[in-house]
Amino acid sequence: MKTTDKNKELAAKIVLKNEKLLFKGIVDGNEPIMIDYIPPLGDGQGYTSLELLLLSISSCLGSALLTFLRRMNKQISHLEIKANGLRRDEHPTGFKSINIEILLTSINTNLSELDRVLKLAEETYCPVWAMLKGNVEIIINPIIISE
Amino acid sequence: MKTTDKNKELAAKIVLKNEKLLFKGIVDGNEPIMIDYIPPLGDGQGYTSLELLLLSISSCLGSALLTFLRRMNKQISHLEIKANGLRRDEHPTGFKSINIEILLTSINTNLSELDRVLKLAEETYCPVWAMLKGNVEIIINPIIISE
Repeated sequence: MKTTDKNKELAAKIVLKNEKLLFKGIVDGNEPIMIDYIPPLGDGQGYTSLELLLLSISSCLGSALLTFLRRMNKQISHLEIKANGLRRDEHPTGFKSINIEILLTSINTNLSELDRVLKLAEETYCPVWAMLKGNVEIIINPIIISE
Repeated sequence: MKTTDKNKELAAKIVLKNEKLLFKGIVDGNEPIMIDYIPPLGDGQGYTSLELLLLSISSCLGSALLTFLRRMNKQISHLEIKANGLRRDEHPTGFKSINIEILLTSINTNLSELDRVLKLAEETYCPVWAMLKGNVEIIINPIIISE
Protein backbone atom coordinates (compact mmCIF):
# COMPACT_ATOMS: atom_id res chain seq x y z
CA MET A 1 0.00 0.00 0.00
CA LYS A 2 1.27 3.48 -0.78
CA THR A 3 2.08 5.86 2.06
CA THR A 4 -0.62 8.49 2.41
CA ASP A 5 -1.17 11.60 4.48
CA LYS A 6 -3.60 10.16 7.01
CA ASN A 7 -5.13 13.59 7.53
CA LYS A 8 -6.51 13.29 4.02
CA GLU A 9 -6.74 9.66 3.07
CA LEU A 10 -6.68 6.28 4.81
CA ALA A 11 -6.25 2.81 3.41
CA ALA A 12 -6.82 -0.76 4.59
CA LYS A 13 -7.11 -4.15 2.99
CA ILE A 14 -8.50 -7.56 3.82
CA VAL A 15 -7.49 -10.94 2.42
CA LEU A 16 -9.62 -14.09 2.61
CA LYS A 17 -7.85 -16.78 4.65
CA ASN A 18 -10.08 -19.86 4.61
CA GLU A 19 -13.06 -21.52 2.87
CA LYS A 20 -15.53 -19.65 5.04
CA LEU A 21 -15.45 -15.99 6.13
CA LEU A 22 -12.10 -15.56 7.88
CA PHE A 23 -10.21 -12.48 6.72
CA LYS A 24 -6.89 -11.02 7.69
CA GLY A 25 -7.19 -7.25 8.00
CA ILE A 26 -4.07 -5.25 7.17
CA VAL A 27 -3.03 -1.64 7.61
CA ASP A 28 0.67 -0.95 7.09
CA GLY A 29 2.65 -0.65 10.31
CA ASN A 30 0.11 -2.48 12.48
CA GLU A 31 -0.39 -6.02 13.71
CA PRO A 32 -2.91 -7.73 11.39
CA ILE A 33 -6.44 -8.17 12.73
CA MET A 34 -8.28 -11.46 12.25
CA ILE A 35 -11.87 -10.86 11.18
CA ASP A 36 -14.51 -13.57 11.09
CA TYR A 37 -18.25 -14.01 11.29
CA ILE A 38 -20.16 -16.02 13.86
CA PRO A 39 -21.12 -19.69 13.21
CA PRO A 40 -22.50 -21.24 11.12
CA LEU A 41 -21.38 -18.89 8.30
CA GLY A 42 -18.04 -18.20 9.98
CA ASP A 43 -16.12 -19.87 12.79
CA GLY A 44 -15.97 -16.95 15.23
CA GLN A 45 -12.16 -16.83 15.01
CA GLY A 46 -11.87 -13.07 14.94
CA TYR A 47 -13.58 -9.73 15.28
CA THR A 48 -16.89 -9.32 13.49
CA SER A 49 -17.33 -6.30 11.19
CA LEU A 50 -19.81 -4.83 13.65
CA GLU A 51 -17.40 -5.18 16.59
CA LEU A 52 -14.80 -3.26 14.55
CA LEU A 53 -17.42 -0.56 14.06
CA LEU A 54 -17.97 -0.37 17.84
CA LEU A 55 -14.23 0.02 18.39
CA SER A 56 -14.17 2.66 15.67
CA ILE A 57 -16.85 4.86 17.20
CA SER A 58 -15.61 4.35 20.78
CA SER A 59 -12.05 5.36 19.98
CA CYS A 60 -13.19 8.26 17.82
CA LEU A 61 -15.36 9.56 20.64
CA GLY A 62 -12.68 8.91 23.28
CA SER A 63 -10.07 10.82 21.27
CA ALA A 64 -12.38 13.81 20.82
CA LEU A 65 -13.23 13.89 24.53
CA LEU A 66 -9.61 13.61 25.67
CA THR A 67 -8.48 16.32 23.28
CA PHE A 68 -11.07 18.82 24.52
CA LEU A 69 -10.78 17.94 28.21
CA ARG A 70 -7.00 18.34 28.14
CA ARG A 71 -7.32 21.72 26.45
CA MET A 72 -9.51 22.64 29.44
CA ASN A 73 -6.65 21.50 31.71
CA LYS A 74 -8.60 18.55 33.06
CA GLN A 75 -6.60 15.78 34.68
CA ILE A 76 -7.60 12.43 33.23
CA SER A 77 -6.20 9.48 35.14
CA HIS A 78 -8.31 6.81 33.42
CA LEU A 79 -10.79 6.49 30.59
CA GLU A 80 -12.73 3.41 29.62
CA ILE A 81 -15.51 3.30 27.04
CA LYS A 82 -17.88 0.36 26.65
CA ALA A 83 -20.04 0.14 23.56
CA ASN A 84 -22.98 -2.14 23.10
CA GLY A 85 -24.77 -2.33 19.77
CA LEU A 86 -28.30 -3.67 19.33
CA ARG A 87 -28.87 -5.14 15.86
CA ARG A 88 -31.99 -4.86 13.76
CA ASP A 89 -34.08 -8.01 13.43
CA GLU A 90 -34.45 -7.68 9.66
CA HIS A 91 -31.77 -7.22 6.97
CA PRO A 92 -29.71 -5.08 6.88
CA THR A 93 -28.96 -6.28 10.42
CA GLY A 94 -26.82 -3.33 11.43
CA PHE A 95 -27.25 -1.47 14.69
CA LYS A 96 -30.51 0.29 15.43
CA SER A 97 -28.82 1.75 18.48
CA ILE A 98 -25.42 1.87 20.14
CA ASN A 99 -25.22 2.36 23.89
CA ILE A 100 -21.96 3.90 25.00
CA GLU A 101 -20.86 3.97 28.63
CA ILE A 102 -18.07 6.42 29.37
CA LEU A 103 -16.12 5.85 32.59
CA LEU A 104 -13.89 8.85 33.17
CA THR A 105 -11.63 9.13 36.20
CA SER A 106 -10.79 12.78 36.85
CA ILE A 107 -10.41 14.85 40.00
CA ASN A 108 -11.35 18.15 38.33
CA THR A 109 -14.04 17.38 35.75
CA ASN A 110 -17.75 17.59 36.47
CA LEU A 111 -20.63 16.04 34.59
CA SER A 112 -21.81 19.26 32.97
CA GLU A 113 -18.31 19.84 31.58
CA LEU A 114 -18.22 16.31 30.24
CA ASP A 115 -21.69 16.78 28.72
CA ARG A 116 -20.54 19.95 26.99
CA VAL A 117 -17.58 18.16 25.44
CA LEU A 118 -19.81 15.25 24.41
CA LYS A 119 -22.05 17.71 22.60
CA LEU A 120 -19.04 19.07 20.66
CA ALA A 121 -18.06 15.53 19.73
CA GLU A 122 -21.58 14.69 18.58
CA GLU A 123 -22.06 17.87 16.56
CA THR A 124 -18.66 18.32 14.98
CA TYR A 125 -15.58 16.52 16.23
CA CYS A 126 -16.27 12.79 16.12
CA PRO A 127 -16.18 11.86 12.43
CA VAL A 128 -17.42 8.31 12.96
CA TRP A 129 -20.49 9.59 14.80
CA ALA A 130 -21.09 12.00 11.90
CA MET A 131 -20.96 9.13 9.40
CA LEU A 132 -23.61 7.14 11.32
CA LYS A 133 -25.92 10.09 11.91
CA GLY A 134 -29.52 9.59 10.86
CA ASN A 135 -28.99 5.84 10.53
CA VAL A 136 -28.06 4.71 14.04
CA GLU A 137 -29.23 6.05 17.39
CA ILE A 138 -26.27 6.73 19.70
CA ILE A 139 -27.06 6.79 23.42
CA ILE A 140 -24.37 8.03 25.79
CA ASN A 141 -24.15 7.26 29.49
CA PRO A 142 -21.29 9.26 31.04
CA ILE A 143 -19.95 8.42 34.51
CA ILE A 144 -17.26 10.40 36.33
CA ILE A 145 -15.18 8.87 39.08
CA SER A 146 -13.39 11.57 41.09
CA GLU A 147 -10.74 9.95 43.17
CA MET B 1 -18.16 -8.39 29.45
CA LYS B 2 -21.25 -10.58 29.50
CA THR B 3 -21.76 -13.21 26.82
CA THR B 4 -24.32 -12.09 24.30
CA ASP B 5 -26.04 -13.59 21.27
CA LYS B 6 -24.04 -11.86 18.57
CA ASN B 7 -26.97 -12.12 16.18
CA LYS B 8 -28.73 -9.58 18.41
CA GLU B 9 -26.16 -7.63 20.33
CA LEU B 10 -22.43 -6.95 20.15
CA ALA B 11 -20.09 -5.43 22.70
CA ALA B 12 -16.61 -3.95 22.72
CA LYS B 13 -14.58 -1.80 25.05
CA ILE B 14 -11.54 0.45 24.90
CA VAL B 15 -9.19 1.45 27.71
CA LEU B 16 -6.83 4.44 27.61
CA LYS B 17 -3.20 3.30 27.82
CA ASN B 18 -1.05 6.43 27.83
CA GLU B 19 -1.09 10.22 28.34
CA LYS B 20 -2.08 10.80 24.72
CA LEU B 21 -4.61 8.89 22.58
CA LEU B 22 -3.46 5.27 22.70
CA PHE B 23 -6.29 2.84 23.49
CA LYS B 24 -6.40 -0.90 23.86
CA GLY B 25 -9.50 -2.26 22.13
CA ILE B 26 -11.00 -5.38 23.63
CA VAL B 27 -13.63 -7.87 22.52
CA ASP B 28 -13.76 -11.10 24.51
CA GLY B 29 -12.05 -14.02 22.83
CA ASN B 30 -9.90 -11.91 20.50
CA GLU B 31 -6.40 -10.49 20.52
CA PRO B 32 -6.58 -6.87 21.72
CA ILE B 33 -6.22 -4.17 19.07
CA MET B 34 -4.02 -1.13 19.69
CA ILE B 35 -5.77 2.05 18.55
CA ASP B 36 -4.01 5.39 18.26
CA TYR B 37 -4.25 8.66 16.41
CA ILE B 38 -1.64 10.18 14.14
CA PRO B 39 0.95 12.68 15.46
CA PRO B 40 0.95 15.20 17.00
CA LEU B 41 -2.22 14.34 18.95
CA GLY B 42 -1.34 10.63 19.04
CA ASP B 43 1.85 8.67 18.35
CA GLY B 44 0.61 6.52 15.46
CA GLN B 45 1.12 3.32 17.48
CA GLY B 46 -2.03 1.61 16.33
CA TYR B 47 -5.03 1.60 14.03
CA THR B 48 -6.90 4.86 13.69
CA SER B 49 -10.67 4.84 14.24
CA LEU B 50 -11.17 5.50 10.53
CA GLU B 51 -8.97 2.56 9.51
CA LEU B 52 -11.09 0.32 11.73
CA LEU B 53 -14.13 1.63 9.89
CA LEU B 54 -12.52 0.71 6.54
CA LEU B 55 -11.87 -2.83 7.83
CA SER B 56 -15.44 -2.97 9.09
CA ILE B 57 -17.06 -2.11 5.77
CA SER B 58 -14.61 -4.21 3.72
CA SER B 59 -15.18 -7.35 5.76
CA CYS B 60 -18.93 -6.78 5.89
CA LEU B 61 -19.05 -6.45 2.12
CA GLY B 62 -16.68 -9.38 1.59
CA SER B 63 -18.78 -11.65 3.79
CA ALA B 64 -21.99 -10.73 1.97
CA LEU B 65 -20.38 -11.35 -1.43
CA LEU B 66 -18.89 -14.70 -0.45
CA THR B 67 -22.15 -15.90 1.06
CA PHE B 68 -24.15 -15.14 -2.08
CA LEU B 69 -21.52 -16.34 -4.56
CA ARG B 70 -21.17 -19.68 -2.77
CA ARG B 71 -24.94 -20.15 -2.78
CA MET B 72 -24.65 -19.71 -6.56
CA ASN B 73 -21.99 -22.48 -6.54
CA LYS B 74 -19.21 -20.12 -7.54
CA GLN B 75 -15.68 -21.28 -6.87
CA ILE B 76 -13.76 -18.60 -5.04
CA SER B 77 -10.04 -19.27 -4.82
CA HIS B 78 -9.03 -15.82 -3.57
CA LEU B 79 -10.64 -12.60 -2.44
CA GLU B 80 -8.88 -9.40 -1.55
CA ILE B 81 -10.60 -6.09 -0.84
CA LYS B 82 -8.76 -2.77 -0.67
CA ALA B 83 -10.53 0.23 0.80
CA ASN B 84 -9.38 3.80 0.51
CA GLY B 85 -11.22 6.55 2.33
CA LEU B 86 -10.98 10.23 1.42
CA ARG B 87 -11.55 12.53 4.40
CA ARG B 88 -13.45 15.79 4.41
CA ASP B 89 -11.33 18.93 4.77
CA GLU B 90 -13.54 20.44 7.47
CA HIS B 91 -14.75 18.93 10.75
CA PRO B 92 -16.21 16.38 11.09
CA THR B 93 -13.31 14.97 9.09
CA GLY B 94 -14.91 11.62 8.30
CA PHE B 95 -14.95 10.11 4.84
CA LYS B 96 -16.70 11.91 2.03
CA SER B 97 -16.10 8.82 -0.07
CA ILE B 98 -14.74 5.30 0.24
CA ASN B 99 -13.24 3.63 -2.82
CA ILE B 100 -13.37 -0.13 -2.62
CA GLU B 101 -11.43 -2.37 -4.99
CA ILE B 102 -12.59 -5.98 -5.06
CA LEU B 103 -10.13 -8.53 -6.44
CA LEU B 104 -11.96 -11.81 -6.87
CA THR B 105 -10.27 -14.91 -8.24
CA SER B 106 -12.88 -17.30 -9.61
CA ILE B 107 -13.01 -19.55 -12.65
CA ASN B 108 -16.79 -19.49 -12.95
CA THR B 109 -17.94 -16.00 -11.98
CA ASN B 110 -18.48 -13.20 -14.47
CA LEU B 111 -18.65 -9.47 -13.86
CA SER B 112 -22.40 -9.19 -14.29
CA GLU B 113 -22.92 -11.90 -11.65
CA LEU B 114 -20.58 -10.08 -9.29
CA ASP B 115 -22.39 -6.81 -9.97
CA ARG B 116 -25.72 -8.43 -9.16
CA VAL B 117 -24.40 -9.68 -5.82
CA LEU B 118 -22.86 -6.27 -5.10
CA LYS B 119 -26.28 -4.71 -5.62
CA LEU B 120 -27.80 -7.12 -3.08
CA ALA B 121 -25.07 -6.21 -0.60
CA GLU B 122 -25.63 -2.50 -1.12
CA GLU B 123 -29.40 -2.64 -0.87
CA THR B 124 -29.92 -5.14 1.89
CA TYR B 125 -27.18 -7.47 3.07
CA CYS B 126 -24.21 -5.39 4.11
CA PRO B 127 -25.22 -3.80 7.42
CA VAL B 128 -22.18 -1.52 7.65
CA TRP B 129 -22.96 -0.08 4.22
CA ALA B 130 -26.55 0.51 5.36
CA MET B 131 -25.33 2.42 8.44
CA LEU B 132 -23.20 4.77 6.32
CA LYS B 133 -25.84 5.34 3.65
CA GLY B 134 -26.64 8.96 2.87
CA ASN B 135 -23.53 10.13 4.72
CA VAL B 136 -20.65 8.55 2.78
CA GLU B 137 -20.36 7.83 -0.93
CA ILE B 138 -19.23 4.26 -1.54
CA ILE B 139 -17.60 3.59 -4.92
CA ILE B 140 -16.93 -0.02 -5.91
CA ASN B 141 -14.41 -1.19 -8.45
CA PRO B 142 -14.80 -4.96 -8.98
CA ILE B 143 -12.11 -6.98 -10.77
CA ILE B 144 -12.37 -10.68 -11.58
CA ILE B 145 -9.30 -12.80 -12.19
CA SER B 146 -10.23 -16.11 -13.86
CA GLU B 147 -7.28 -18.45 -13.61
